[in-house]
Formats: sequence, C-alpha cells, structure tokens
Amino acid sequence: MNAVTERLSIPALMDAMGASARIAAGELARSDALTRDKVLRVAAATIVQRSEEIIAANERDMEAAQTRGLSAAMLDRLALTPARIESIAAGLETVASLPNPLGKVLAEWERPNGLVIQRISVPLGVIGIIYESRPNVTADAAALCLKSGNAVILRGGSESFQSSNLIHQCLVEGMQSAGINPDAIQIVPTTDRDAVGYLLSSMGAYLDVVVPRGGKNLIKRVQQEARVPVIGHLEGICHVYLHESADAEMARDISCNAKMRRTGICGAAESLLVDRKAAERLLPVVCTALLEAGCEIRGDQTVQRLVPGAVAATDEDWSSEYLDAVISVKVVEDIDAATKHIARYGSGHTECIVASSADAAERFFAEVDSAILLHNASTQFADGGEFGMGAEIGIATGRIHARGPVGAEQLTSYKYVVRGTGQTRP
Amino acid sequence: MNAVTERLSIPALMDAMGASARIAAGELARSDALTRDKVLRVAAATIVQRSEEIIAANERDMEAAQTRGLSAAMLDRLALTPARIESIAAGLETVASLPNPLGKVLAEWERPNGLVIQRISVPLGVIGIIYESRPNVTADAAALCLKSGNAVILRGGSESFQSSNLIHQCLVEGMQSAGINPDAIQIVPTTDRDAVGYLLSSMGAYLDVVVPRGGKNLIKRVQQEARVPVIGHLEGICHVYLHESADAEMARDISCNAKMRRTGICGAAESLLVDRKAAERLLPVVCTALLEAGCEIRGDQTVQRLVPGAVAATDEDWSSEYLDAVISVKVVEDIDAATKHIARYGSGHTECIVASSADAAERFFAEVDSAILLHNASTQFADGGEFGMGAEIGIATGRIHARGPVGAEQLTSYKYVVRGTGQTRP
Repeated sequence: MNAVTERLSIPALMDAMGASARIAAGELARSDALTRDKVLRVAAATIVQRSEEIIAANERDMEAAQTRGLSAAMLDRLALTPARIESIAAGLETVASLPNPLGKVLAEWERPNGLVIQRISVPLGVIGIIYESRPNVTADAAALCLKSGNAVILRGGSESFQSSNLIHQCLVEGMQSAGINPDAIQIVPTTDRDAVGYLLSSMGAYLDVVVPRGGKNLIKRVQQEARVPVIGHLEGICHVYLHESADAEMARDISCNAKMRRTGICGAAESLLVDRKAAERLLPVVCTALLEAGCEIRGDQTVQRLVPGAVAATDEDWSSEYLDAVISVKVVEDIDAATKHIARYGSGHTECIVASSADAAERFFAEVDSAILLHNASTQFADGGEFGMGAEIGIATGRIHARGPVGAEQLTSYKYVVRGTGQTRP
Repeated sequence: MNAVTERLSIPALMDAMGASARIAAGELARSDALTRDKVLRVAAATIVQRSEEIIAANERDMEAAQTRGLSAAMLDRLALTPARIESIAAGLETVASLPNPLGKVLAEWERPNGLVIQRISVPLGVIGIIYESRPNVTADAAALCLKSGNAVILRGGSESFQSSNLIHQCLVEGMQSAGINPDAIQIVPTTDRDAVGYLLSSMGAYLDVVVPRGGKNLIKRVQQEARVPVIGHLEGICHVYLHESADAEMARDISCNAKMRRTGICGAAESLLVDRKAAERLLPVVCTALLEAGCEIRGDQTVQRLVPGAVAATDEDWSSEYLDAVISVKVVEDIDAATKHIARYGSGHTECIVASSADAAERFFAEVDSAILLHNASTQFADGGEFGMGAEIGIATGRIHARGPVGAEQLTSYKYVVRGTGQTRP
C-alpha cells in the first residue's frame, strides 16, 4: 500500500483497481499463451529466490495471529515453510505447463444456409477472489486466472496480509518480466473489511464474477451481499455409502481414507451410510479401523450395538460438516434410502458408493445429484489437482457456470464466430 | 388462480410454488427423454385444439391493454392470431424433436491412478423466467426448460395474463398425459408485482437461476433486486462494420437486412461504421438503400456530406438502441478505430464485419469481444432458431454460464462421475 492508495477512500480505491483491471483484462485477452506462461514461470523462480523474505513476512503474520489468539488449525494454514514455498512455486510451474484454455473451438457446425458457426473459448474478464488465511491461494488463484486470460483482484485474509503481499510482488515481477500490464493481478492493499463489502456490492461494472474461497461465514456473507455473479462453494457434507455388495477391505480402506487422510478439507467424508443387510459384516471392520485411527463415531442404535465405542448420533449430526476426526454413521434399508438420506442431508459436493455391483453404482450415479460422484474411490479425490486440472480455486457446489473443481478451463466463457458469404435473413 | 391460492400471501404462495417445483425437478431429472418430448407434443396438439379458447382469452387481454392505452407495438406483440397459435404449436414440436441435452458425456479422461472421470450433462434444477407481453414466450420458455429436465416457474407480463394462463393449461394437459408431475411447469397465478420482487429476492432456496426476458426496465429491476443467479441479457447495440475491402452490393444487402428486416429485435443493427478509405465508394450505395427502405440516418459530418438526407448524429446516438427504423452511421479511420468504437459503445451482443479480406475478418473476430461475431452475414442471424438450437429463451450478454443464444443445451449443468477400483488418496 503506497502513499497514494493510503489516502483514498475504499470506494475510490476499489473503483480505481476495478477500472485498471478492466483495461488489463482487455490487453490480456489479446496476449499470447507463451507470454502468460512466462509470467508464471518467472514468478515461480522469484518466489524461490525470495523465499527468505517471504518467510520473514510470514513470521510477522504468524506473530500477529498468535497475539490475536488464532486456533492451532488456523495457524497451521497460515504458516509457510521452505517446503511449502517450494510447493507454491511448483504449483505455478504446473499451471504454466497446462494446455492453453483459450481460443479452443468448443463446437462447430454448418447451417443449411451455409453459415459456419464456431463456439470459441475466451476469458471471463475480471475475476474477484475472496479467500481466507492460506497465503498459497494468492499464487494458485492468480495463476489460474492469468492462465485463462483473466485479470484478477485478490482479497486475502487479513491474517496472511504480509505473506500474500510478498507473493503478489513475485507475481508482479513475473508480469513485468513478460511485458504484461501488472494491473492484471492486483491485491487489495488494505485489510479494511469494507473493501470486501464494496467489492461484493458495488463493482458490477468492473467484475465479471466473484469466487469466494473459505469457510461458512465468508460464503454466507457473499451470498447475502453479492450483487455480482458468484461461483460459490458451500460446505462439503460428503457421504460414503457402503452398498450390501461392498467388499469389506475396500470399504474399510476407502472409508478411512475418505475421513482421516485430511479431515479439514471440503472433500473429507462426514457421514457413513451402510446397507442393513451388510451392517454386521461391514461395520465392525470399517469402524474398528476408524476408531484405531483416532476417529470418533456417532451412530444410530444399530451402529452403537455393533460398534463398541460408538456414541449416539443426534439429528444434527446428519447435517454437520465436522472438518475434524468425527464421523456420523447410519444404517439404511437399501440404496433407495441411502440416496434419499443424501438428498436430504448432503450439500451436493461429493459422495462415494462402495459396491461390487456395477448396477448399484450406475443407479447411485443416476439418482444422486452432487457435483462429484465416485464408485470405489475415496471422496478425498474431490480436488482439481487429482482431476488433472493442475490446480483449483475451489469446488463449486452451485449449478451455474461451473460445478465441481474450478480450474483454468472453468474460468473461461466463449463467443460465437460466424462465417458467411453474404447471407441475409429472409 | 383458485380459491386456495387467492387467500395466500405472496410469500406463502411463492414459497409453495418453489417447494413443489423443487420436488418436480427431482422427478423430472430422472424422467426419460421420450416422456419429456411427449409432454411437448401433446401440449402442441392441445394448443391447436383449443385455439379458439386461446384467441378468446387473448381478446380479453387485448381489450384490457387497449383500455390501459398500450402502444401499437406492444399491442402487436400481445396479439394472437390463428397463424401465431400454429407457430407456437410448431415451436413446441421443434423443441420436442431436438436431441436430448441430458446425460451427454461432455468429457472423459483417465488418470494415471486408473480413475476414469466423466463429465455428464444434467439439468440446472428449477428455473424462474420473468418475461413481458408476448404470450408465445410462455410456451417457448416452458418447452426449453422441460426439454432440458428443469422445472420452471413462469411469470409473464400482466398484459398477457389470460392468454398465458390458457397456454399454460395446454402444457399442464401435456404433462398429465405423459405422467409428469404438473408442478414441473407452473405459472405465477397473480399479476401482483410483489411476486416478481419475492421471486428475485427471497427464493434462493428453490431457484437455481432466473432468466429475465424483456426490456431495459425489467433487466434493470432484475439486476438491482436479484439474490439468485441470473442469466441476463442486456440491450443489443449491434454494429455493422464495412471494411475498406467490402463488396458494395454485399455491404448494401447486409446493412439493409441487419437494420430493417425487423427493427424491434435485439439483433437488429443500430450503428454502421465505414472505413474512411471506402466511405465514398460504399456510403452512397448503402445509405440510399437504407433511406429508400424508410430508415432515418444519423451521421457524422462526412456521412452528412456523402449522404443527402442524413441528419446529424449526437454523441448519444452511438450508445442508443433505437429498436426502430433509425441507424447511426460513422466514418472510422481503420479496423482498429472500428473495434475501439465497438468496445466503447457496444453492448457485447452481436457485431458484423463486411469484408473481402479474410485477414480483416480474423482480426475482427480476435479483437472484438461480443457474444456473436459475424463475417459477411446479417446481425439478424443472432437467434437461437437461426443457430439451429430450435428455439431460445434469449440472447445472453453476460459471460457467466451461457453467452449468446440460450437454448435447451444452455439450460444444463453437469456432474462428474468417477469410476475406481478401490483407489485411496496417498
């Protein structure tokens, strides 16, 4: 934040950022892919070169966060280590090496009158990203936006202000080195919360879409205040459903991985459903492993009978996103009851069926309406990187524009190009 | 509107419609394509059978509209004739015969760990359509929503209330005949304007998207009040640009067609740009034809000099959507000036270049950022039917979700289906 921006009011500051982002977006849409990739490669190298400075900035953030009494989980998200910085740089390299998502002919057809119509991918324009404490999002989100030819206005969490600003400086060096207008990637230079409100409510003239990435409170605020289009993601109340045909070992391995690999991500399983016919065969194997891994089990009466150590689940448990080593477990009559339970309590994020029966899997795929459905694979694969998208801004649970992992391809729009030979409409 | 709904408050009425639409949407998503097509075919036949009743209802609408002093253009939009009713029925048949947009494998790939990922088209869910006086939109919009497996809540203009309700009854007969829950296509049974406000602001739990179709005032209201995602379309300030390489006869024919075929549609040209080098060669030919067709010409000084009968354009003319037999005409230095003019004054809808030079056309395609770009073809082709989509709900000028003509395919979302063999994430 320089002397000039410090003196501006929030509206004046944000409008100035929006107007310059709009200009940069126009230039970026006409830039070539190699130039955009160069930005990311130079930024990656700069982040490695300046890693000591970044760690020093991160230490200032960490000190302030400790003073403010942030939780251990929040502090862990905020902390940067040399390994994490390497990983941020590697992420930029990965995005740089992805195929160019722009200028692709998405569809092409000819009309009886001879008009040839093409649908061609183009950038969205200017994207606003609002995120929380993880400083790596600064690099990931900026990289995906730039890769897809979009200008971006980043607004990170106040906890990571110093770290994110330094990472942003590395991105600016990348843009300068590649000859790209540095207004293409801007970061809001103040922690004033009014800036978020203004961005959500009053920047429709500058922003084509806002992507919030964070916890429930952020998403709630965005939903209430946004007057611009939003690609949102809500909580992930993800289910693992053990069909009566499930193999017991596979059920155990997938359930444990889906719940315990990392409990704090939105693709972590929160609820386990088991067919009544297979409950006695499957539950002891699966739940013993979960308990041994340190997971608390909250179950219905059958579960409590079959699993020593399980505690009673309340109705609230079925709609809880624990993001912790806790799982709710329920016995269901059959696949029909399972899909109904998911429709009622799920958040439309990610669900898995473990089944030897291919028919059961196909029925699950047809009847469950979530962004990601898996057969015999862990819900923790719900991730742009695991999908082969290189990185992701988040997992969209809305149905408009993008659904599931949001990578560079999902940050594009399209236009129609029509070639004629003088046709007029009768 | 029956005795029960008459007694409900607007919020209670709208919430009840939303909740039943949500249930119908779940059922519709699992219905098969032949059943959905049957709804449309039976509705088409019913509309023809009941055409006298529909015309009688339309006459009641017309009388009320005349009493309220609607303009001749509005009255023309509202009026139904036997031919127009035939055309509404034919439109339903056309949509019925389109390919099924659901269940399509949009993309498929395998990951190194053996997971096979498919992206599959699914309905959006529940769509709200707000439109104005044309009663045919009731049938067109409902047909496209149903074809793509979406439940819809229709809110037509109060002028067409009687006509739209009777067309809706024919759609209900189609649903009943095909065994589809009739809550899949509902029409708001009151002309109370508060219903629109409630639909826009308070039905996020029920609606996945709202599509407004109408004039500036409607779009403005939607933009201000909507707390649900919107697929919007703004005005169409469409340009025809005559490149110096343009053939004079083609320039004349395309300009006249783009402006005068129908002046009241959003794809009608409103502005003509001509390269200075070709102004003397092209302008007299093109503008004489426009004047002879009854078009008023508002031009800059060069235009006024070259075209007897042209009047002076003011700055306001460059950003005016006349929707009438008026065109603004400007001489530009070159293609660069033309694309800059379009960027500044255009609405991102549809633009045309007339040029013999293929290079000029490619440059125009690359640099102009509008939903539809045409080379040597009239802007009046900006239409879902002309694109081969069977019908359209409108032309989207936003960049989120859909851009250009919105047909059945654009009213879909997708989900990911992932097939594994027991994979867990390391």
